Amino acid sequence: MTKVIKNGTVLTADRQWTADVLIEGETIKQIGENLSGDEVIDAEGAYVIPGGIDPHTHLEMPFMGTTAAETFESGTWAAATGGTTMLVDFCLPGEDGSIKNAINEWHRKSAPQICSDIGYHMAITGWNESVFAEMKDAVEMGVNSFKHFMAYKGALMIEDDEMFASFKRCRELGALPMVHAENGDLVADMQAEMLAKGITGPEGHAYSRPPEFEGEAANRAITIADAAGTPLYIVHVSCEQAHEAIRRARQKGMRVYGEPLIQFLTLDESEYFHTDWEHAARRVMSPPFRSKDHQDSLWAGLQAGSLQVVATDHAAFTTEQKRMGIDNFTLIPNGSNGLEERLAVLWTKGVETGRLTPEEFVAVTSTNVAKILNIYPQKGAIVEGADADIVVWDPKISKTISPANHHSVLDYNVFEGWEVTAQARHTLSRGEVIWSWGQNSQPQPGRGRFVKRPPFASASKALSQWKELTAPKQIQRDPMNIPAGI
Amino acid sequence: MTKVIKNGTVLTADRQWTADVLIEGETIKQIGENLSGDEVIDAEGAYVIPGGIDPHTHLEMPFMGTTAAETFESGTWAAATGGTTMLVDFCLPGEDGSIKNAINEWHRKSAPQICSDIGYHMAITGWNESVFAEMKDAVEMGVNSFKHFMAYKGALMIEDDEMFASFKRCRELGALPMVHAENGDLVADMQAEMLAKGITGPEGHAYSRPPEFEGEAANRAITIADAAGTPLYIVHVSCEQAHEAIRRARQKGMRVYGEPLIQFLTLDESEYFHTDWEHAARRVMSPPFRSKDHQDSLWAGLQAGSLQVVATDHAAFTTEQKRMGIDNFTLIPNGSNGLEERLAVLWTKGVETGRLTPEEFVAVTSTNVAKILNIYPQKGAIVEGADADIVVWDPKISKTISPANHHSVLDYNVFEGWEVTAQARHTLSRGEVIWSWGQNSQPQPGRGRFVKRPPFASASKALSQWKELTAPKQIQRDPMNIPAGI
Amino acid sequence: MTKVIKNGTVLTADRQWTADVLIEGETIKQIGENLSGDEVIDAEGAYVIPGGIDPHTHLEMPFMGTTAAETFESGTWAAATGGTTMLVDFCLPGEDGSIKNAINEWHRKSAPQICSDIGYHMAITGWNESVFAEMKDAVEMGVNSFKHFMAYKGALMIEDDEMFASFKRCRELGALPMVHAENGDLVADMQAEMLAKGITGPEGHAYSRPPEFEGEAANRAITIADAAGTPLYIVHVSCEQAHEAIRRARQKGMRVYGEPLIQFLTLDESEYFHTDWEHAARRVMSPPFRSKDHQDSLWAGLQAGSLQVVATDHAAFTTEQKRMGIDNFTLIPNGSNGLEERLAVLWTKGVETGRLTPEEFVAVTSTNVAKILNIYPQKGAIVEGADADIVVWDPKISKTISPANHHSVLDYNVFEGWEVTAQARHTLSRGEVIWSWGQNSQPQPGRGRFVKRPPFASASKALSQWKELTAPKQIQRDPMNIPAGI
Amino acid sequence: MTKVIKNGTVLTADRQWTADVLIEGETIKQIGENLSGDEVIDAEGAYVIPGGIDPHTHLEMPFMGTTAAETFESGTWAAATGGTTMLVDFCLPGEDGSIKNAINEWHRKSAPQICSDIGYHMAITGWNESVFAEMKDAVEMGVNSFKHFMAYKGALMIEDDEMFASFKRCRELGALPMVHAENGDLVADMQAEMLAKGITGPEGHAYSRPPEFEGEAANRAITIADAAGTPLYIVHVSCEQAHEAIRRARQKGMRVYGEPLIQFLTLDESEYFHTDWEHAARRVMSPPFRSKDHQDSLWAGLQAGSLQVVATDHAAFTTEQKRMGIDNFTLIPNGSNGLEERLAVLWTKGVETGRLTPEEFVAVTSTNVAKILNIYPQKGAIVEGADADIVVWDPKISKTISPANHHSVLDYNVFEGWEVTAQARHTLSRGEVIWSWGQNSQPQPGRGRFVKRPPFASASKALSQWKELTAPKQIQRDPMNIPAGI
Ligand SMILES: [Zn+2]
Ligand SMILES: [Zn+2]
Ligand SMILES: [Zn+2]
Ligand SMILES: [Zn+2]
Ligand SMILES: [Zn+2]
Ligand SMILES: [Zn+2]
Ligand SMILES: [Zn+2]
Ligand SMILES: [Zn+2]
Repeated sequence: MTKVIKNGTVLTADRQWTADVLIEGETIKQIGENLSGDEVIDAEGAYVIPGGIDPHTHLEMPFMGTTAAETFESGTWAAATGGTTMLVDFCLPGEDGSIKNAINEWHRKSAPQICSDIGYHMAITGWNESVFAEMKDAVEMGVNSFKHFMAYKGALMIEDDEMFASFKRCRELGALPMVHAENGDLVADMQAEMLAKGITGPEGHAYSRPPEFEGEAANRAITIADAAGTPLYIVHVSCEQAHEAIRRARQKGMRVYGEPLIQFLTLDESEYFHTDWEHAARRVMSPPFRSKDHQDSLWAGLQAGSLQVVATDHAAFTTEQKRMGIDNFTLIPNGSNGLEERLAVLWTKGVETGRLTPEEFVAVTSTNVAKILNIYPQKGAIVEGADADIVVWDPKISKTISPANHHSVLDYNVFEGWEVTAQARHTLSRGEVIWSWGQNSQPQPGRGRFVKRPPFASASKALSQWKELTAPKQIQRDPMNIPAGI
Repeated sequence: MTKVIKNGTVLTADRQWTADVLIEGETIKQIGENLSGDEVIDAEGAYVIPGGIDPHTHLEMPFMGTTAAETFESGTWAAATGGTTMLVDFCLPGEDGSIKNAINEWHRKSAPQICSDIGYHMAITGWNESVFAEMKDAVEMGVNSFKHFMAYKGALMIEDDEMFASFKRCRELGALPMVHAENGDLVADMQAEMLAKGITGPEGHAYSRPPEFEGEAANRAITIADAAGTPLYIVHVSCEQAHEAIRRARQKGMRVYGEPLIQFLTLDESEYFHTDWEHAARRVMSPPFRSKDHQDSLWAGLQAGSLQVVATDHAAFTTEQKRMGIDNFTLIPNGSNGLEERLAVLWTKGVETGRLTPEEFVAVTSTNVAKILNIYPQKGAIVEGADADIVVWDPKISKTISPANHHSVLDYNVFEGWEVTAQARHTLSRGEVIWSWGQNSQPQPGRGRFVKRPPFASASKALSQWKELTAPKQIQRDPMNIPAGI
Repeated sequence: MTKVIKNGTVLTADRQWTADVLIEGETIKQIGENLSGDEVIDAEGAYVIPGGIDPHTHLEMPFMGTTAAETFESGTWAAATGGTTMLVDFCLPGEDGSIKNAINEWHRKSAPQICSDIGYHMAITGWNESVFAEMKDAVEMGVNSFKHFMAYKGALMIEDDEMFASFKRCRELGALPMVHAENGDLVADMQAEMLAKGITGPEGHAYSRPPEFEGEAANRAITIADAAGTPLYIVHVSCEQAHEAIRRARQKGMRVYGEPLIQFLTLDESEYFHTDWEHAARRVMSPPFRSKDHQDSLWAGLQAGSLQVVATDHAAFTTEQKRMGIDNFTLIPNGSNGLEERLAVLWTKGVETGRLTPEEFVAVTSTNVAKILNIYPQKGAIVEGADADIVVWDPKISKTISPANHHSVLDYNVFEGWEVTAQARHTLSRGEVIWSWGQNSQPQPGRGRFVKRPPFASASKALSQWKELTAPKQIQRDPMNIPAGI
Repeated sequence: MTKVIKNGTVLTADRQWTADVLIEGETIKQIGENLSGDEVIDAEGAYVIPGGIDPHTHLEMPFMGTTAAETFESGTWAAATGGTTMLVDFCLPGEDGSIKNAINEWHRKSAPQICSDIGYHMAITGWNESVFAEMKDAVEMGVNSFKHFMAYKGALMIEDDEMFASFKRCRELGALPMVHAENGDLVADMQAEMLAKGITGPEGHAYSRPPEFEGEAANRAITIADAAGTPLYIVHVSCEQAHEAIRRARQKGMRVYGEPLIQFLTLDESEYFHTDWEHAARRVMSPPFRSKDHQDSLWAGLQAGSLQVVATDHAAFTTEQKRMGIDNFTLIPNGSNGLEERLAVLWTKGVETGRLTPEEFVAVTSTNVAKILNIYPQKGAIVEGADADIVVWDPKISKTISPANHHSVLDYNVFEGWEVTAQARHTLSRGEVIWSWGQNSQPQPGRGRFVKRPPFASASKALSQWKELTAPKQIQRDPMNIPAGI
């Protein structure tokens, strides 16, 4: 059975051109003019783009004494309706600390639920021989990236020497280290300080996590990665300070990637000063939204290539869950939504304004991260042989975002009331149309698959080569010039 | 008649994979496994890459009282032997100042000679209504980029207000302005100063063109482009100062491109202090080679994406011609060679060391400039439908560069004695094998074609959109609040 | 006859301490405890500071078809009432272009009027042998600084090669070059563009002089000064762009000074968007006020030492004069007031907030510029032997700024309605109390003097030494290695 | 008994002028022309400068299993012969951890030995309630600065949250926090890595402490100080990375000071690659000497004011002691000499070349640090009432540095063989001539005094004011807008 997407403009990270796309089974068979297939999908007036990849989600994550409300089913489904066909979720070790067990547990939870494909990043939350050993297992199981939390002291946080050990292990394995960059010691102290001052509301969240703490941690992680000789991926870059650290590193030839979130590009810290507590609490995430001037920095980074990926850090807690922190902002579960809205908001605020070219839109929503995570062009591309994860992206459908029409389980939406000017007309996951605008499409839990990612991406290999070439070398000293010692 | 390139690793700006490439006529018909064709080209053990594009040459250029010795025939032929299948030459207006006439004159000279494809950038060396009008003609004739010399005072140099007018015209036409960035006033004065001090040798060339003069001009051109609302391409970026200006601009969302030369990445200013006058004079070009620390900046720029293209500024003058400046360095014809060596030197010093990934090598030698010049994917790509400008790049052939084995007309080579570790096993221009290593291939003058380039590249359109959105707006004042005047 | 200032806290750029100050005639005789003199000036509860020096005024300046309304009398008087005891005015050549004549003309105008001391900066508005020669005369006449306008095309503007020649001449003479940094070509074009779009109101002034134009010119002037081997002083720094250029230069060891204005530190561009035309027009000056984020940059520069001096560029045109531009913002005479308000506003917004230490307040209002202009410690210091230009600065007197109580001839005040929290209780000029708060003091025209400033300030000498040490050196080549030429 | 220094040129951080200096007892009585006193000290042809202050020494420090060989007697004496009349030594807590006891112990050791005045910085090497309490005692005992080691893991190193607590305590007390900025975790790991690779020689010291580790720590300490709301002093700044962090902070209005060492300004890392083990080992200190390009950064910082103080970190270990690390560079006692040479080397390499003005020389050798440490103008100044710590600095005496003629106990000198072109003709400590060139002066142990330094320097007060003004403020929410909680 073949399908053909007819009359659209294929839009990739490179270019746009008029062509039909022929799909056979799960993959793209041919791209060209006047193709025909058993089934026709109309793309007239629309773009045909690679399905979005959201590299940063937390579905059903146990966190801060509760569990993220978005399930693997609702999450992957909301994603699909918004044009995102793959997400990469963060896998946390359980009480036994085992990486293998954690991955298997994630499989157990996700497999029956997922409507489209997923991958995992594995969290390294401590360091010992078994972690060292199991990192190899993770890579063999298809997880080629490891996340390190520099914040959440007393919980997920890891120390510098542990990070250094883990980063060196990543280099050996050809895996990619990632960091949540905030100085956890300072955050913890500032939280206490705010509470001591009687600042218990959501504004205290913003005050206790200033951009400088993020910039500091980003800079530190970069230093560690450079010493370890590995590329580094910094998740949820929210501010100029972290971006500056990334730029400075890149200008020394370090291979550092930065991931702003769609929230950070468009929302600002005034949300935390909102006089409605629930409004503010629903936006509590870490790092927090920043003042408006940081947004220009992030947009310019996407244009300039110093930032590469737009993600969501989708971690959805209901208003009820948010109320856990009613008397104490440090108890508000951290997280906000975006999985479904990412593409539409980025198109509206980015492409429609001319801040991004259409090609850059594709690059930052799928292609770049596919390359960084080393699954390109299986994902993130419209080329023959690639998985037919394709979105027919219609720049003529507009919609007002609302909990009433979104597909998340959340009872609110941080983008509520925004009008977006483009939507997914059709979403295909490995050749199957899983969503069509206005067609009453329904989720198909269990049809999604886990995507294995191989190690040793090109940048990782090149960097290792350079580090070997420039490694410290012993000075040869004539024994005559070395004293006998004491 | 079809050809198939068998058993190679296709290497593009995106990725590398094992595939055969089927060529029908002048274009790529199919890329895949187990393809067959009428003729087989062996790529076993080699990479199959897009033919190199050198966006910066001066063939047979009348300059400084003489004419560059490299002809369109020898230049395109040397290029082809080195893996470069297209070059973009700078077209200068003649005495009548007409752009159309200049383009036609360039056609007249090049057409019978060129062995592979070419394009032109048109130089804007003054400003008047006829230049304004003829810029449109140039675009219609397939020239979508305009070069502005900020140096060569009294000859090619143009003033700020002229640049501003021309850049605004570029925006209207969707064309790309380019600059040679050096402050020509200061250079002229410093030249006079050096001569007055008795510094008449080639070292005076370096002294009179310090990096600060280049950085200043780059910064000025960027300011003008930003005010005009157009992207900008800065040719032959040699130093941190110009690179810094480019980075700073890009971090504000300005769309500025920078082109280091292969010479600047690998050669340094000590060449001008060589006690052999001829050695030094042969390296005289503008801007000059810089001190070694600038090289790190340029390499990092290629990695980070703040610099996009590696070119040569190939302008070949023989030793005899160089001797015109025996008593006065300002009379040494400016220019050096590199057309043939660019790919091999970049591979050896870049990819073999791990400074660049193989993908980045392709990006900076062909793909990026094809995109910037808006001829992608006709050129600079291995995709179906693209021109079959393809190189079978063999990382196992090494060679020592020498005038004895190079294909330029020059009697010397600035890379003489260097060992390079990769070479073009075969070079195809629009489907024809025009060079094979060790096969006594001969140039075929006249088979090359002029490639028309359309205006309105994607970045140009996006930037215009943003500039319109953020354009100055009149304040509405109540007439009551405006006094009657005097 | 002696006077003693009793019971105050002497506050200098270095320190603060309790001491009396004994004055004999025009100079400070002694500083210490328990001093006595013929006359006692009470400083109880107040600071005793060096009189303010405003290094940037335009009194009675013929400009844009009219003449600045503030006279030497009213200007020096307003200054004195605000705690400023010396100003340095810009002297412009007349129609004959003669520097000597211009200085003499400025003497003729100022001598009978000035209430306290003054100096001049001489404007270089073109270049020829007579300018070259007369610069020496200027230095001998006590003018050791030369101003260059990079804007005001068709009027005061000067070209790069002229600046380079003049800067080199400055180096020889040990004089200090200064620049008004805006790209005049671009400004002129943007003005025309705004008018063509129908933007004729004061907002057009802001739009046509963006920060980028100032940054560009600052950067260019710095490049020229570095090539010439001289320090440089950049007047009226309004924005991060110019400040960034200054910082970047200083971090390379270049000796560049930057002068923000009190207006730029506290007022912003929204003033030009005011719907009352007169309100907006009264604030028209070049460069214009900037958006608020630039203010943080300027304050930090004063703290960090990358900016050294707070001035006013006081050029006062009445509302009536401003109306010249009622139909065309380019005809609004450029200039705003501040001579009287500078110290009080800086104290209120700087010292009271903790942005500046009290010592830094003194440094940037008098001491630093006295050093830069090489009249320290005659001016700008409280040391024995110094001119007794002293202000008893009372941090307990507050006042609301208003045209009703100011001493300028202006019918408005750009700081109107602001409450300031400190005032001059007494102002002494060379030992004479010329102003006492609430005492109905009256101006004494003619008592002021012209202060000669010697060349070769310390930084100028040191820089010349370094430049000689690192000057280009000829390469010695064996004649055998130099070909015979052609 | 009075003394008068006749016929010299008084040279201060502000200016130079011809004057005699009259001393009565221990302090400066008068500065002026034609003064007379009981005793005349000839300064003809020489400068009269404030005695040098070295803010960074480790005399008799117990460290790395041994004790620094330079005693309080030999150290203060060597200092005096080189023109330094005060030093500030680092006081380390003993086994009981008590600050008070440590200060008393330091008094016990130093009092009978010191030939001129001293102060202490107190090291904070851990955190608990008693440290919190005793910091106040330290301030009352005249120690207003606290040092934090971010390196020396397992020994002196302190964690981020401890630093944050200590910095906040410093703010309360008006004391100045200082840091040794190197990431101690990373250093420890890199040391192990080098040893594991068989790199046991002194080059391993350089390799295991790259500039990035210093820059990282500097950046982190700055972040912490900013959060705590206190100024910060970064000792021994060796590299562009740390300097960049400092500049970046200062450009945000943070009050950060940086102290390059005379060694870092003039010596480079090639010393560690010397084939003579002892030569290399004698230069082992932390941070290590850097590559030459860092030197330009440091010199420019002194000119630009982004770095303020030149110190020595004098910690003298004999060759015999250095041999402790013969098999393992991590056991080489860290430290090098410079107390005696600082002024002469800085004058020769700085003032004689024009890199620094003579005034800047004074500023960075005494005045700036006296201000920062809040003992200005008692020390660091030539003003009436100041301590007569004065050096008659003779720019005509040249000398070749050698262990044969130096006054340190060391058997070598890191500046051995260098010719310096200026020397102290006379050194006065509180009015007493303790050293005269060529006069066989002898040390007078016990005549020196401990100098108490008060808290709340001007910058500290201003910063606190600003931080209070901009402190987080609680959002007032209507109880109606706060949900009831769960
Ligand atoms: Zn996170
Ligand atoms: Zn997350
Ligand atoms: Zn050029
Ligand atoms: Zn060229
Ligand atoms: Zn001006
Ligand atoms: Zn002015
Ligand atoms: Zn230390
Ligand atoms: Zn130390």
